[in-house]
Amino acid sequence: MSDNRSFEVCKWDGQTARSEPDELAAEEPLEIRVRGRAVTVTMRTPGHDEELAAGFLLTEGIVKSGRDILRCEHCGKNEPGNVLNVLLAPEVYVDFDRLTRHVFASSSCGLCGKATIEAVQANLPAIQSDLSLDPEMIARLPDAMRNAQQTFDRTGGLHAAAIFDQRGKLIVLREDVGRHNAVDKVIGHCLLSNHFPLDRHILLVSGRSSFEILQKSLAARIPIVAAVSAPSSLAVEFAQRSGQTLIGFLRGRRMNVYSHPHRLRFSGIEV
Amino acid sequence: MSDNRSFEVCKWDGQTARSEPDELAAEEPLEIRVRGRAVTVTMRTPGHDEELAAGFLLTEGIVKSGRDILRCEHCGKNEPGNVLNVLLAPEVYVDFDRLTRHVFASSSCGLCGKATIEAVQANLPAIQSDLSLDPEMIARLPDAMRNAQQTFDRTGGLHAAAIFDQRGKLIVLREDVGRHNAVDKVIGHCLLSNHFPLDRHILLVSGRSSFEILQKSLAARIPIVAAVSAPSSLAVEFAQRSGQTLIGFLRGRRMNVYSHPHRLRFSGIEV
Repeated sequence: MSDNRSFEVCKWDGQTARSEPDELAAEEPLEIRVRGRAVTVTMRTPGHDEELAAGFLLTEGIVKSGRDILRCEHCGKNEPGNVLNVLLAPEVYVDFDRLTRHVFASSSCGLCGKATIEAVQANLPAIQSDLSLDPEMIARLPDAMRNAQQTFDRTGGLHAAAIFDQRGKLIVLREDVGRHNAVDKVIGHCLLSNHFPLDRHILLVSGRSSFEILQKSLAARIPIVAAVSAPSSLAVEFAQRSGQTLIGFLRGRRMNVYSHPHRLRFSGIEV
Repeated sequence: MSDNRSFEVCKWDGQTARSEPDELAAEEPLEIRVRGRAVTVTMRTPGHDEELAAGFLLTEGIVKSGRDILRCEHCGKNEPGNVLNVLLAPEVYVDFDRLTRHVFASSSCGLCGKATIEAVQANLPAIQSDLSLDPEMIARLPDAMRNAQQTFDRTGGLHAAAIFDQRGKLIVLREDVGRHNAVDKVIGHCLLSNHFPLDRHILLVSGRSSFEILQKSLAARIPIVAAVSAPSSLAVEFAQRSGQTLIGFLRGRRMNVYSHPHRLRFSGIEV
């Protein structure tokens, strides 16, 4: 499903070095343009660029629904397709200063994790979902994701993100050299296919969960975020305040729940 | 060595859920200021912020040596220390537009990996080092790095970067929630401690190697970059043109060499 590139590689097995062909995950810059202006350049795995742009614009607070995006088109004829023009509906307001600055508003020297969380959550209400799921179902999601990751075995170099519905059905899986890009792509896919908002859904990521992944999932109204690895401290603090259930170390039949465990129907509970 | 935070976590082992304390890697925003202006905000693991700033400014092309940085000081009194003022020598020229734009120069629609590589390498000559090393020594570096990563076992959530000299001696190891931050920190450490340039050294990263990691290591003149996981296609293309030896999948006694294998003294070679 991803764009791989073939290279000639010198492989050493501890005794002998030999030259062999090998496939690697493609990495190329993508410039996203809105109303003729570049708003970001990200290093991404080519493919599903429209989804990446849609997810980026949603999670940056520019668009609110799929209807805000009229069309996406790659720019140029013989070019490699690394510039994407996004045509927004005329009524969408774009704050170019905020978008291109990429620096959080910091009042004098008060920049801290708490202020950063508050700045994001001021524009996004906390999630108050009554979703209640079986932890056995959640525990099966990493296997479901890996089964869908045909690319992974070939390159070993990609981050994966997937959206599942509340019955554990895979809605979409995307892989990318950048883990935040993979999240933008699955959210953007759902936005563009009118599978939105994701308020009865689960986001699963193959690596760790960060502040930024929680921020993106809150913008998409996702109540449950799960990761195969650890969360950062700020991801946990964000989830505690955003009303999101944050799961980490989802491996085998085990998991750690860092916030709002009430959405998981554990049978045996020891306090 | 890193700043960990303690949280109360609900742990499920497949049968029983119980509440336990757990340690997580800290993630906080850091704003780097030069001449009173914010040039970047990065989500990082607190600690070694001066190194992070020095590495960032070097790899962005602002400073050329440790002498260009007069002093780094955290701003504010009762604040969490997330704003760092860097005092540069008066003669250092800072192109604020380029620094804060964070958008690569793209001439009309010609943005592509090749153009991106050329834009970086126009300012940085290729490496022409005669360094020649024993692959057995290289193969021992991941174990040396893991032995030094006391934090890893506690949180499982950190990226590591390390600089070794040509005899395999560890110069510096840093961990961070962001893999590019970890690279900035080890490079910044060497810059600030006058262990610079790194033209007889090896950079080892715990994860994958990307375009950006190769770019940063070229700015520090590092001839050999090794990673435990896969490189991206653009990392390989960059290394082929920059004269750097790029090693991936460095595990056990095995390794893949993606560019300039002549710096490794393989005994058995099959063509």
